[in-house]
Amino acid sequence: MNTDKALLVDLYELTMAAAYFEHGIDCRATFELFVRHLPAQRSYLVAAGLDSALTYLENLRFSEDDVRLLREQSAFQTVGPEFFDYLREFWFHGDVHALAEGTLAFADEPLLQVTAPVLEAQIAETYLLSVIHYETLVASKAARVVRAAAGRPVLEFGTRRAHGPEAGVRAARAACLAGCTATSNVLAGALYDLPLAGTAAHSWTQVFADERRSFEALLETFPDTAILLVDTYDPLVGAEIAATLGKDVPGVRLDSGDMMEKSRYVRDILDRHGRRATKIVASGDLNEYRIEELIAHGAPIDSFGVGTDLVTSRDVPALSVVYKLVETEKSGVVEPKTKFSEEKVYWPGRKQVFRFSQQGKYHHDLLARAGEEYPEAAPLLEPVMEAGRRLAPAPLVKEIRERTLANLACLPEAYHLLREAPAYPVEKSAGLDRLLEEVRMQRLGAAKASPQREVISS
Amino acid sequence: MNTDKALLVDLYELTMAAAYFEHGIDCRATFELFVRHLPAQRSYLVAAGLDSALTYLENLRFSEDDVRLLREQSAFQTVGPEFFDYLREFWFHGDVHALAEGTLAFADEPLLQVTAPVLEAQIAETYLLSVIHYETLVASKAARVVRAAAGRPVLEFGTRRAHGPEAGVRAARAACLAGCTATSNVLAGALYDLPLAGTAAHSWTQVFADERRSFEALLETFPDTAILLVDTYDPLVGAEIAATLGKDVPGVRLDSGDMMEKSRYVRDILDRHGRRATKIVASGDLNEYRIEELIAHGAPIDSFGVGTDLVTSRDVPALSVVYKLVETEKSGVVEPKTKFSEEKVYWPGRKQVFRFSQQGKYHHDLLARAGEEYPEAAPLLEPVMEAGRRLAPAPLVKEIRERTLANLACLPEAYHLLREAPAYPVEKSAGLDRLLEEVRMQRLGAAKASPQREVISS
Repeated sequence: MNTDKALLVDLYELTMAAAYFEHGIDCRATFELFVRHLPAQRSYLVAAGLDSALTYLENLRFSEDDVRLLREQSAFQTVGPEFFDYLREFWFHGDVHALAEGTLAFADEPLLQVTAPVLEAQIAETYLLSVIHYETLVASKAARVVRAAAGRPVLEFGTRRAHGPEAGVRAARAACLAGCTATSNVLAGALYDLPLAGTAAHSWTQVFADERRSFEALLETFPDTAILLVDTYDPLVGAEIAATLGKDVPGVRLDSGDMMEKSRYVRDILDRHGRRATKIVASGDLNEYRIEELIAHGAPIDSFGVGTDLVTSRDVPALSVVYKLVETEKSGVVEPKTKFSEEKVYWPGRKQVFRFSQQGKYHHDLLARAGEEYPEAAPLLEPVMEAGRRLAPAPLVKEIRERTLANLACLPEAYHLLREAPAYPVEKSAGLDRLLEEVRMQRLGAAKASPQREVISS
Repeated sequence: MNTDKALLVDLYELTMAAAYFEHGIDCRATFELFVRHLPAQRSYLVAAGLDSALTYLENLRFSEDDVRLLREQSAFQTVGPEFFDYLREFWFHGDVHALAEGTLAFADEPLLQVTAPVLEAQIAETYLLSVIHYETLVASKAARVVRAAAGRPVLEFGTRRAHGPEAGVRAARAACLAGCTATSNVLAGALYDLPLAGTAAHSWTQVFADERRSFEALLETFPDTAILLVDTYDPLVGAEIAATLGKDVPGVRLDSGDMMEKSRYVRDILDRHGRRATKIVASGDLNEYRIEELIAHGAPIDSFGVGTDLVTSRDVPALSVVYKLVETEKSGVVEPKTKFSEEKVYWPGRKQVFRFSQQGKYHHDLLARAGEEYPEAAPLLEPVMEAGRRLAPAPLVKEIRERTLANLACLPEAYHLLREAPAYPVEKSAGLDRLLEEVRMQRLGAAKASPQREVISS
């Protein structure tokens, strides 16, 4: 796939850009990227995708090919050549504030805040939404799965069922930064220095006439790491064979059937043959709910390979994530913005998120206007890019993982419930309330002044 | 993102490859890629992803960097240097049969059948599953949405909520090949020659002090194509303004609220001002169920912009897709393969799918062994690659779209029901039944001969 990113946008970003350009509209604009509502199955989000977002903004350029392709589109036939000259010189000059990856976030809280010439901030919308949304979606799911596993390693195995192989790479990074121990995705491992994990497929065993011989052969090549998949024919027979190879076996994997019962039988077989060090890996449509149940019932499983449910966030495959204009500024005149169409009002103005703790545990958040001060709280949005330049190199995934785990440790127990967790309180400051009211009154004034208003009311 | 594809695999593909290599296992293997079960909400699949699959196989090479990165992984420390020399020379020599993109498919039917040296066929597993799965998932969802729209255009608007921007590009192509009229994804449009569609965002209107002025400005730049988003403040006021600009307005978009009621009011306003040619586009968390309802109730909506639900296949975000070894061949000795772990038995041997029609409508399918003949039925798996070379250039998306629409027209009405459609019959041939029984008996013999069997039974 061509991965030229400049054209990887919704058409309207570029048509609006052309129209802004042709009308000389060059205010600075602040957009905030946030999730409107958390679904019932998510009591928190783990912010992720910032590295992808900043890498995109740093490298966003329109090649001559991009410009040519755009000019050929019928939508652009009425756009003059000066706009395309503008695109040829385009780069992102804006400032970005963001929650650090691995920070817990809740509804209405900006994950990203972009302040730039309106045209630049607009063009970036589609890509920024897409990477922050997906990586946050997976990191948030992964944190739940890791929590359910109660300290036993969770291995990310999902690339084959991710929404394309590139999503698999993104998912591997997001899963590991949220607490997974390793991934099966080799490219993600190489790119982000993530531990790799893998076992063997049923095909490995099937190619051999004899199951025992297939196990021996894998151990000959990988004596220290081979995990034998024992359920190609009969998992108990497979386990018995694995236990009687006359050598140490690092692990066995179970991929089907009643995991509770199977894992107990297999543990017994291994132990009976003195293979107490041989680990049991479970896989096969696992998720946080199944894992919680397995652990609650004492299944002797040492680690969990989780794929489809993790990388597609199967119970919640999308969040209500949006990128909204909250403020424009031109010649020092600042105008806060929102919209008033039903149910889609949002908080206007540039914001800061303050997190209040008590006795080392998060107590509540306060969404406030940027510039408000609450010395007893931690402000979470921090500057990460100025005038198009990153302010610091990207942290390592293992550093982000530490932040995630530290954040999760500060979240009170109730919010960790996998089902019917209460909503973490996110209050809005009096200043923000007043601002919304001001914008509303101003808008009402404008609507009343409009000659159409009467027509509609009649 | 680095998109080097050779490492975009699960670790176990490469560890198994190393072990095959070190043990001199070089049989030819046939793997089939199929969906085990259709979920309740899907009565058919629209095959897609073949072009991505073949492009991958044609270009699969390991660069010196790939080899270096692999050798650095701890998993490969026990692997000798000859395997890495093998990877340096690697290319895919295999044959591929497949359902043409746009062909309807059902559970158990191979979408793809790969015959190659086992090591090559194994390495390709992860990527092939990922592209065929996701593109088929979206095409199958899109066909439902297009059907619900009953002839009104469906526009694919989902990139921002796709699982990463690359998934957005794949989704755009898959949606269009399954019947969507256009996409908002500019890169997908340019790469695959897809019609583009777009409107404007709320931010466009918000940047202007005055809604009327924002509409006028967009129409000045795009007199023939501008779609005005009228619900930033009050959709009826917005529609009134759009209707009284004193010039033709190509369309208006509604993005929130009760679409049924709103679209009627807006249509009335437009008509009252003589803007009968102005189209109404609806968007905002639409899917096939909502669209069916809107149309059943006569909503005057001319086209539907569908995003999140389409590109994430929200009600079914993953299919039970697998890539299974069905046969090995060495020196002319062919061995059919399956596995017998509970609930995961599959049909062994190389297969063909035969589709039987009556009076121009599909009647049932027959899954049979390759080589069986049913002259009255259409065989669906066709050769698409031989010895690593494509047999024909990729068809255009608009050609695939024709095939999809022709296929859908042959599917009897009952299977088009969005809810509780019956299962389309996929019978298995007597030859396939016999083969499964033979493999089962052979396996039982092998198990009985195993000294472990008694231990387990006791």
